[in-house]
Amino acid sequence: MALDKTWFSEICEESGTAFSVKIQEKLHTEEGSLQTIDIYATEEYGNMMVIDGFIMITDRDNQIYHEMISHPALFCHKNPRKLAIIGGGDCGTLKEVLKHKSIESVTLIEIDENVVLLAKKFFPVLAHAAEDDRATILHENGAEWIRKHSDLDIILIDSTDPVGPAQELFSEEFYRNCHKALADGGIMVQQSESPLYHMNILKPMQKSIRQAGFASTQIQHFFQSSYPSGWWTCTMAAKDASTDLSKFNEQASTDKPFDTFYYNAGIHKASMVSPEFFKREMEEN
Amino acid sequence: MALDKTWFSEICEESGTAFSVKIQEKLHTEEGSLQTIDIYATEEYGNMMVIDGFIMITDRDNQIYHEMISHPALFCHKNPRKLAIIGGGDCGTLKEVLKHKSIESVTLIEIDENVVLLAKKFFPVLAHAAEDDRATILHENGAEWIRKHSDLDIILIDSTDPVGPAQELFSEEFYRNCHKALADGGIMVQQSESPLYHMNILKPMQKSIRQAGFASTQIQHFFQSSYPSGWWTCTMAAKDASTDLSKFNEQASTDKPFDTFYYNAGIHKASMVSPEFFKREMEEN
Repeated sequence: MALDKTWFSEICEESGTAFSVKIQEKLHTEEGSLQTIDIYATEEYGNMMVIDGFIMITDRDNQIYHEMISHPALFCHKNPRKLAIIGGGDCGTLKEVLKHKSIESVTLIEIDENVVLLAKKFFPVLAHAAEDDRATILHENGAEWIRKHSDLDIILIDSTDPVGPAQELFSEEFYRNCHKALADGGIMVQQSESPLYHMNILKPMQKSIRQAGFASTQIQHFFQSSYPSGWWTCTMAAKDASTDLSKFNEQASTDKPFDTFYYNAGIHKASMVSPEFFKREMEEN
Repeated sequence: MALDKTWFSEICEESGTAFSVKIQEKLHTEEGSLQTIDIYATEEYGNMMVIDGFIMITDRDNQIYHEMISHPALFCHKNPRKLAIIGGGDCGTLKEVLKHKSIESVTLIEIDENVVLLAKKFFPVLAHAAEDDRATILHENGAEWIRKHSDLDIILIDSTDPVGPAQELFSEEFYRNCHKALADGGIMVQQSESPLYHMNILKPMQKSIRQAGFASTQIQHFFQSSYPSGWWTCTMAAKDASTDLSKFNEQASTDKPFDTFYYNAGIHKASMVSPEFFKREMEEN
């Protein structure tokens, strides 16, 4: 069946697939110097933010990604207080992070101010987090900011795909600077694409992270219907051997005093399990 | 971006989404009395079978579904010997089942002979399983066949969605007949749609299964990129209290003498974990 003009389609060239969302209306287009941002009202996915043609967030399923990029590292780290988020201008990751009482400060470095401005207008439930006293929002190059800072407990790299302005956030040099910017026992998390379509990104990323000095990595799988294949991952990386990424504070996770849509202690453990083809390919890495 | 005629699109009305696959050519159309079957050669997903407009299998990712509908029940049952598959004419589930040495006989009851004939032509890697001496393929109504048989160890309901010819395979009466057809310690498995889109099918299904006399159910989650939302489930149901569906022969699963693409012992356990929203909704059930 052909899709008429009431559909927004995102083509994933490398997999020969497309994901489409039925649109009510286009609410806004912002053609900035860095990237173009479109906001749509959809039939069943609420509001949707699209950057350079790629779906970033929807009201319906953004929670899964935002919870899975943040809570596993936060329950794995022994005492997370000082955080940085690179990218993440929609403030969804910030919102999840701030649910943890131990957090004293979060610096969110989003290169494109338009992302934050549009999130405030069209995703207020997420962007509300920017008003928390513990949050600082900066609009500068995240890679440069990281070079000048240190003593971070956790760095969350909540970026677009490795094309355009986000490209350098997938480089070994950037990971090396993240490693330096972390305090002892620190954890970095990088969104790491789809196991079904992007092993060509996922595999070298693990190598780059280890070569940058990280002691270990741990991949976590989760369902993300609005991203290609519906199957997405994050990769956690431990600065040093004092952190066992396969363990976490399960009691605190089970007793968490806040609500989540997707994450729980069981999901935390389950997300770390990889299927056969994935294990085989990573062993060859 | 609009999709031109080189794409096949499956619209999921209830979620306002569509999944599209880039096509090389349409290889075959079979307009049968029960349903219309199209076979496509795709750019990146290999051959693809579409029934009444819905993607059934692709070369690229059919293994995940076929492994997850079969191996969990086979490693949970204490000694599976005699099986029935309702539907499943592509023979992908049959192929997985026959990897288990304990299996003495499998009867596959596919109402539409065309599915098997086209699988033999366009999915020979799957349909090859039909030649196994332990396999019997019948073309009749699966619900009626079940009423007349008994002493089955496992029944796998590998059906299309609950519309068209498959509708009665989602009814309490059918489940009651499956319950009768199972031997003591028997297990039924039903494909059970997407947690993100089909809680309105999933929830009453659990109720119907329990009301039909089954002692317990266990839902398993897995990634299925070619089905709506990329997130699919199967539901296992235990005939009686002698079977604990949350347990399985982990040693046998770990030592399995055959290859899989997705399934392993870790995935078996991980697939049984449900996210927060799902647990909340099922508790209200």
